[in-house]
Amino acid sequence: MAEKWVLMVTAQTPTNIAVIKYWGKRDENLILPINDSISVTLDPQHLCTTTSVAVSPAFTHDRMWLNGKEISLSGGRYQNCLRELRARASDVEDEEKGIKIAKKDWEKLHVHIASYNNFPTAAGLASSAAGFACLVFSLAKLMNVKEDHSKLSAIARQGSGSACRSLYGGFVKWIMGKEENGSDSIAVQLADEKHWGDLVIIIAVVSSRQKETSSTSGMRETVETSMLIEHRAKEVVPRRIIQMEEAIKDHDFPSFSRLACSDSNQFHAVCLDTSPPIFYMNDTSHRIISCIEKWNRFEGTPQVAYTFDAGPNAVLIAHNRNAAKLLLQRLLFYFPPQSDTDLSRYSLPSHVDFYCWKSVNFNSLKSIFPLCLLFSSYVIGDKSILEDAGVHNMKDIEALAAPPEVKDNTPAQKYKGDVSYFICTRPGKGPVLLNDETKELLNAETGLPN
Amino acid sequence: MAEKWVLMVTAQTPTNIAVIKYWGKRDENLILPINDSISVTLDPQHLCTTTSVAVSPAFTHDRMWLNGKEISLSGGRYQNCLRELRARASDVEDEEKGIKIAKKDWEKLHVHIASYNNFPTAAGLASSAAGFACLVFSLAKLMNVKEDHSKLSAIARQGSGSACRSLYGGFVKWIMGKEENGSDSIAVQLADEKHWGDLVIIIAVVSSRQKETSSTSGMRETVETSMLIEHRAKEVVPRRIIQMEEAIKDHDFPSFSRLACSDSNQFHAVCLDTSPPIFYMNDTSHRIISCIEKWNRFEGTPQVAYTFDAGPNAVLIAHNRNAAKLLLQRLLFYFPPQSDTDLSRYSLPSHVDFYCWKSVNFNSLKSIFPLCLLFSSYVIGDKSILEDAGVHNMKDIEALAAPPEVKDNTPAQKYKGDVSYFICTRPGKGPVLLNDETKELLNAETGLPN
Repeated sequence: MAEKWVLMVTAQTPTNIAVIKYWGKRDENLILPINDSISVTLDPQHLCTTTSVAVSPAFTHDRMWLNGKEISLSGGRYQNCLRELRARASDVEDEEKGIKIAKKDWEKLHVHIASYNNFPTAAGLASSAAGFACLVFSLAKLMNVKEDHSKLSAIARQGSGSACRSLYGGFVKWIMGKEENGSDSIAVQLADEKHWGDLVIIIAVVSSRQKETSSTSGMRETVETSMLIEHRAKEVVPRRIIQMEEAIKDHDFPSFSRLACSDSNQFHAVCLDTSPPIFYMNDTSHRIISCIEKWNRFEGTPQVAYTFDAGPNAVLIAHNRNAAKLLLQRLLFYFPPQSDTDLSRYSLPSHVDFYCWKSVNFNSLKSIFPLCLLFSSYVIGDKSILEDAGVHNMKDIEALAAPPEVKDNTPAQKYKGDVSYFICTRPGKGPVLLNDETKELLNAETGLPN
Repeated sequence: MAEKWVLMVTAQTPTNIAVIKYWGKRDENLILPINDSISVTLDPQHLCTTTSVAVSPAFTHDRMWLNGKEISLSGGRYQNCLRELRARASDVEDEEKGIKIAKKDWEKLHVHIASYNNFPTAAGLASSAAGFACLVFSLAKLMNVKEDHSKLSAIARQGSGSACRSLYGGFVKWIMGKEENGSDSIAVQLADEKHWGDLVIIIAVVSSRQKETSSTSGMRETVETSMLIEHRAKEVVPRRIIQMEEAIKDHDFPSFSRLACSDSNQFHAVCLDTSPPIFYMNDTSHRIISCIEKWNRFEGTPQVAYTFDAGPNAVLIAHNRNAAKLLLQRLLFYFPPQSDTDLSRYSLPSHVDFYCWKSVNFNSLKSIFPLCLLFSSYVIGDKSILEDAGVHNMKDIEALAAPPEVKDNTPAQKYKGDVSYFICTRPGKGPVLLNDETKELLNAETGLPN
């Protein structure tokens, strides 16, 4: 075995948004939840993590770089994932490079991991879900772990609970399981991303001045202090899981929307019932909800569902392209960009929007906001929705009419600057291996970040 | 019986703030709640309703004026109160004026009612509670209704649920009762206002751009759609009622504070769990909660309890005068007045603050804000707390230091203009008759508003 080789795998994994929420653990170390949850996987073209993992006899210890900056792997969550994967590693042979790794060698070999998100880490868009899913998926490929995605999901779960749902595309259920060791707490795919291809997802990244409670400490405090969480987990969610599976199977958007909205609201209700109370939504989040509720009521049947994770950002799921167009018009009407946003840049190739973020360390939304203005635009992702909406520049936004559900006699209040930007996306596929060498994040010779 | 006489009674009734919340009816017409509630009566010197009621054979129909403007009495709630009172009226004799009214005459005689609040009706400060309590109390005196306050509370309850708790001073429990006719759904006094005389109450009237859901429709929608309200009403509140009664009896402020805060948060949680969700608190409310929670945690034991009704205003209950002083300093530090507020006027006699409101029709907080600046000041009510806090003018506010619980390295964010004004008050007494003719709201000769 030559001492200089580096063997590398690069993979891409999507993030996901829960429509029946995970909130509360029954085991903090194994990350076992108190109820099932269901999510939609988001298109990795717009929101994903890319991870390169490499092994070499030259590596002296396990190392990891996140968005270009080295981070510690000493945390229990990383250690749990690495231990579980090494225990399942198999023989690996690369005939072309003349590399042979025996199953038992994996205990001694060290790995390098480089990971980056094509979206701001701090924006509250479940970066840890995509991140741990990608780490587990790529290491499993590198180490020739022969288990299926559901088994891998149980490993990713130990990194970040919701990461287990990012092992699949489309619509995914995380079964809470009953075993004490967590072996049956796994994700399963309910339907792939083509099953309900009409859905369009628009994410409103909401400006926030508040420091948010981490979901780990938040859910611990809820389980310890809320008088409502047990009733939710034991009585309410099990029924909603059955109904949501039906709604997805039947493409029943009214039921899907009703369940997703109610469950998001109930998750935030139990946060509020926590002592001290946890507020993830702010006035802007509330205004987005009111806008959607009013519109859905006006139409007589839901056009758009909303759901909010542990932060103020709205994830809006439109029934179809037409509803998405009407939604984007409403959002831009109520939440126009700051006047100095250069909306005309929206025709830049989409990778430009994201690649410019790669080398920047995002500590807060505030710090990215000026960059967002400089390099990107106010509506990113699938910009064809913006085309559909007939919006090409600031003047088009200023010319948008008040939605018909607004009563004529009350001039609609506008909230300029309350949304940082919008991302247009859709349900997407699960993890994939990338064979394009230009996407590798580690140097093929040194195993250090590119 | 001379045809020209007018017989009049004038009374004053306090408002109250629930510390274990009433939310949800089991009977919409009789206004029967789904759980017990407990409130603190607020000092009528700072927040009360004054009502004059008059009877005369010259009156052709029942009429009412609220804050100087005639309103309709045709609503079921007014009609229920009037019917219940007439059914219990007795013989009345005023020897001095030579007036004799027989029990049976009350069915034919008409009444005039004039009522005003010494606080803005639209400010979300439970004006209907004080209003209906005062209407029932004063009419009962006029009609010589011989029932005790608990029986009267069951009549006031049919005007506005929480009105029943305004029939007593101090600490009051509204027992939900079991009877279908509501006869046992009454208020009882747990302790009078002197029992826990140390408490100081500061109300932050929060500026709001949102139109709020009325509590009547809000609680109906919660009962119809929330999956958590039943568990709250049946499992959580009964235990809290027992614990809150104990805490009040024992002057146990830590328990009182924990229960009041948790129950306020849970009430807002079930509002959020309603479909469509109801948001009464806004970002300013959340910031006030965070300020109190951080301070209480820093001190190791609660200094101040918070509670929010169906609106964004914070009702803050301080353990004692010293805690109230420290609270007011914190509130003025985080929420300084708009720079054009004339704080130096705060030494005007307190009745000037309120009497100027009497003749104004307040439709929204926005409309009163400039008046509040003109005629009153930023801290009203018991201004001795402001003296304790050492704040006499804008410069004193600007000189306030950041509270010690704020970490040194993070400059505290301030929110100028987010609070309209503060009211300093305390637990207070129940309804009283006013014998001062200058306080009568109806003309003694004509029975029309003064």
